Order: sequence, then C-alpha cells, then structure tokens
Amino acid sequence: MVETIEWTDEGVVLIDQTLLPLKERQVLLTDVHGVANAIQTMKIRGAPAIGVAAAMGLALVARQAATDDSMAFLQELEDARNQLAATRPTAVNLFWALDRMMRLARRTIDAGISVTVDRLVKEAQAIKAEDIKMCRAMGDHAVELFSEGATVLTHCNAGALATAGYGTALGVIRSAYREGRISRVFADETRPLLQGARLTAWELMQDEIPVTLITDNMAAFFMKEGRIDAVVTGADRIAGNGDVANKIGTYGVAVLAKYHGIPFYVAAPSSTFDLSLSSGREIPIERRHKDEVTHLFGIRIAPEGVEVENPAFDVTPVEMVTAIITERGILKPPTAEGIREMLGGG
Amino acid sequence: MVETIEWTDEGVVLIDQTLLPLKERQVLLTDVHGVANAIQTMKIRGAPAIGVAAAMGLALVARQAATDDSMAFLQELEDARNQLAATRPTAVNLFWALDRMMRLARRTIDAGISVTVDRLVKEAQAIKAEDIKMCRAMGDHAVELFSEGATVLTHCNAGALATAGYGTALGVIRSAYREGRISRVFADETRPLLQGARLTAWELMQDEIPVTLITDNMAAFFMKEGRIDAVVTGADRIAGNGDVANKIGTYGVAVLAKYHGIPFYVAAPSSTFDLSLSSGREIPIERRHKDEVTHLFGIRIAPEGVEVENPAFDVTPVEMVTAIITERGILKPPTAEGIREMLGGG
Repeated sequence: MVETIEWTDEGVVLIDQTLLPLKERQVLLTDVHGVANAIQTMKIRGAPAIGVAAAMGLALVARQAATDDSMAFLQELEDARNQLAATRPTAVNLFWALDRMMRLARRTIDAGISVTVDRLVKEAQAIKAEDIKMCRAMGDHAVELFSEGATVLTHCNAGALATAGYGTALGVIRSAYREGRISRVFADETRPLLQGARLTAWELMQDEIPVTLITDNMAAFFMKEGRIDAVVTGADRIAGNGDVANKIGTYGVAVLAKYHGIPFYVAAPSSTFDLSLSSGREIPIERRHKDEVTHLFGIRIAPEGVEVENPAFDVTPVEMVTAIITERGILKPPTAEGIREMLGGG
Repeated sequence: MVETIEWTDEGVVLIDQTLLPLKERQVLLTDVHGVANAIQTMKIRGAPAIGVAAAMGLALVARQAATDDSMAFLQELEDARNQLAATRPTAVNLFWALDRMMRLARRTIDAGISVTVDRLVKEAQAIKAEDIKMCRAMGDHAVELFSEGATVLTHCNAGALATAGYGTALGVIRSAYREGRISRVFADETRPLLQGARLTAWELMQDEIPVTLITDNMAAFFMKEGRIDAVVTGADRIAGNGDVANKIGTYGVAVLAKYHGIPFYVAAPSSTFDLSLSSGREIPIERRHKDEVTHLFGIRIAPEGVEVENPAFDVTPVEMVTAIITERGILKPPTAEGIREMLGGG
C-alpha cells in the first residue's frame, strides 16, 4: 500500500486523497504553503495524519530558513505555525503537533540554528513513527473487545490514510480481523466527501478484509436487522470529560447504536485529548463550503442557489461511548478521572 | 410547475425525474412497456405517483386493445397488470391502483369492450384527480399539528413529484407554511438517489418555501442543536398495525427523532394502508442495483468490485410514529383499531 505521507530530501510526499480511489497520484510539497493547502483542501485528512503533515510543514520551513539570526528563525517558524494552525479548526492533533515542534525549537535554539533544524526534521519523522506505533498498540489492546466473528460498522476513514499508517479505528479492525474476532466491516460512505466509500472501502479491499459499502442512512436498517455487533470510529478531538468530536454523522451513529444496544467504540491516540476543554460543547466545529454538498466530482447534484449547511464534525457525548481505545490502554467507560490519570501517567 | 404525470390523446406524459433538477425533460409513453420501464427506472417514483402511472398504463392497454373478444381483452389487461405489478414491490399504492382498475374492468365488461375502455380511461384520470384532492385534505388536517414558525425535517421526496400533485409530506408542509405554522424545511439529500437534494429542494424553492439542504448524516446534528421541531415523511406502505415502510433512512430519522423528543409524522393517503399485513415485518423490501450506491450520474465514487447492499426502504415501527395524517383525518397515535375504523368508515 502507498504511504500516506513521507519525508524526503525533495520535500513532503503524500498521496492526494481527494482523487482516491479513481487515481493514485502522489504530490510533492516543497514549502509550507503547499502543506497548508493540502490540509485545507483535504488532500491529506484524518486527525493524526494532519498532525504529521503539519509537523513536516514546520520541518520544511526550518530546513529552508535563510537566516543566521535565531530570533528571525523562530519568527519564521512561528509565522508558519500560524499558517498551518489556520487550516482546520477541529482536529486537535494538528495543534498538538505544531506545539510539540515549536516547544522543541525554542528549547534547542540556543545550541544554534543548524542543530535546531536537524532536531526539527528528526522530530517530524519521530511524530510519524510514533503514530504508527500507537496505532498498532491500539489494535493490540482492542482485540479483546470483540467476540469471535463480530461484524462492525465504521464511519468515515480512520485508517492508514488518516494516520501515518495502520489506522486508529481501521487499525483496531485490522488487528481484530487478524485474530478472527472481526469477520466483516460495514463502511458508511460518509457524505459529503465520501471518505468511507472512497478510502475505507479501498483500504479494506487492499487488505482483503470483507467490507460492505452502505449509504449513511442505511446504518439503522442493518442495526435493526441484528447484522452489526459493534461500531468503531476514530476521533478528531476528545474533551477532558470524554466527549468525542468526529466526522459529521458520528453522533447519529452513536444514537442509533445506543438505541439498538450495540457498543460504540472510539479509537484515538492520546494526542487527540484536549484537557483544556471541560466538555465537547467547547470544541470548535468546522463549517465547510456548500459546494461539498451540492457537487460531486464537479457535477451539480442539487438545484442552483439552494441553501446548504455543511458542518464537518459533530460531538458525541461521553455517555454514548462504550470505550475509548488509546495506545496506553482502554478507557471503559471513559471518565474525566480516567482520562486525566491515563494522560498523567504517560 | 410542470405536472408530474398527464393523460393525453398521444399517451402518458411524465417528467423524467431521474434528470431533475439539471434537466426538465418530459417523456411520452405510448404503451405499457414504456410505463413499466419508467416506474422500474424511477423516471416516475413516489408511492401515490406510481399508483397513478400504473392505472394510466392499464388505460393505455385498454385503449389499444385490438380484440372484440371480452375474455381476450381481460386477459390482455391481466398480462399488463402483472407486468406493472412486477416493477417495484414495496409501495402498495401500485397494487391498490392496479386492483381498482382490474375490478372495474371485470365489473364493466358485460356492457361491452368500448364502454369498459371508456370507463378505465376515466378511472385512471379519477385516480389522479382524487390523489390531488387527498393531498390537499391531508394538508388541511395537518396544519394544527405545528406551532407557529416551526422548522421541520423531511426525508426523500413526498412532494408534488411523488404524487399527482401537491404532495403528501410536502403537501402538509405547503399548507402549514401558508398558515405560518412552518418557517423552514430541512431536506435530507436522501442517498443513494438524492430525491431530497434533486426533487424536494427543487420543489420547495419553486414555491419559495425556505429550505436548507443537508446530507442524511447531518440530521442528528441539527436535532441536537434544537433546530428541528418536527419530522414529516411520506409512506410507501403502512401495515395494519401502523408500521410504516418508507424510503431507506426513514427508520433512522425516526429513532433520532424519538431520542431527541421530536414528533415524527407520516402523511399518506388511505390507499397506502395494507390491512392484509398485520405488521411491518411482512412488507417486502426492494433491493436495488449496487450501481446506485457506487455511481452518481455515471461517475464511479467507490472502488471497483466493492460489495454493496442497497435496500431501498425500511420499516419504522408504529410506536415511533407520533401521528399518521390521512385525507380522512389524523391518527394520533396510530393504532390497529384506529386504522381499521378509519378505513372501514370510508
């Protein structure tokens, strides 16, 4: 499988996810503007993956800095940080990765610019390597949650393409499938941008994991028929109390799961938690362009001039979340105290 | 607004709903094969509208019958009836209209073929005229259900295009909007065939009723935000106990409405009730072609060869239905006894 994102001598290489699965085209990004644009236009998406991309964007800026003045160097980084931070508001991994890079830069700058550049380039690559490791750890922890041959529903794409590799929700699914605990995945297509149809179905087919593609509004039908044993999704930001922001539609799936007595699991690395927010009500929800709803691959599918709302995320209250799977273990049920303990014990 | 379906000297004229809203193209159907194909491919859709189309299909057969033998004439009608009945299994109005036409034919045939032809042509037109009248009656009854300025969500298209005119759910909305009881409509786009985006949004914009188009998976978001006061949908078949079969996704919306304490209303003429079925479990659910999910306007939006399920309808249990609005009055709450009384008292 093609790598989601790579650091190379020429720049950042990523697969353009807006074109999948029809075209597998890699793009080379040689400066921070290219990286910011790729995040904003969702050439790369998924909370952990945009964290990695943002870190690499800062590493590019560092490597290209044409100054021997430490303050000017840090200012260049700070400007780039602000540009990258403005791309998408909801996923907190973006800010987490940017802050981690900036803290390192400030801590290292006294040793000189070239040392700092070297450290930043290594840090961006470390963030990527850690992400894959965390996904595999989540998978290991989660296997026990599923009984033999379970069928699961997933929403959006929290797969290798949404991370540095392996995936959060799809990482859990990959591990549990390998152990015989999961036998089939129902993939919601996930309108408006169809990450389920275009990315999740594609990833699972490449791994030969049985997948059934359905439209978002079919999930309730299959739950009622008793054909879905569990739901697993990723997360873009988790508040201190355990409320989960994730792709629009996740909250509806959680309500349906609760109504049908089906467990609802969230898989997310610890970088997804935002302890500065006491509840999900404080999580900023990105509103995207109406064309995402009215057009598909450039074709208009709704009347010209129709009013549209296009919230890109929603918040699932913690009481609907059966468990949160992290690289450090499983929070079942998630509680504010459990979250603080887990993060403090890192 | 263009008429959904018309009876003319040349044949049946209908607007091709698969092309809306991009193209407003009328098609002329001169024989029963054309009518059956138009129903099967959803050039015309919506339970009441396909009832009217099927009746007109039989009227075409009668008018074209080239026999002076009564038995042969009835056999031709019977063959056409079977062809039309095989087009779509779920909406009962189709069978209701066909049975009504066939009963009339058998009752009239002793008076001669030409009398019978005349009666059948008039009956098909009567079914259309009654349908419009029933839609307006539903609208009149339903106004009281909404408090001033309410916002409602509707799913799929139960509008003028789904009926002979005015609409069931959209008829209710039109009447309540005119009385100031409804101020805005949220229209689910209704994947896979996008009847909400293509037809409902278009109809409401033509009537200058404020409409906000959303993807199906956003309904829960707006319910949670307190921005939806009621849900109104149509129905394709209602069992004797009040269970409602309607476009896929309706059941999920009903669960969400129940969870958020929002009333869920169904608007349907009495021809939608099927007293031969004691519950919704007995309603046949049409499964349509996987290409409807994997392609949009001929463009592939999912990986080649992906497995798909495509149930076209689901069943909402009666306990989730706040009221059923019919042309004879409102069943609130709907009960098996109330349904029998209402239909018996017709």
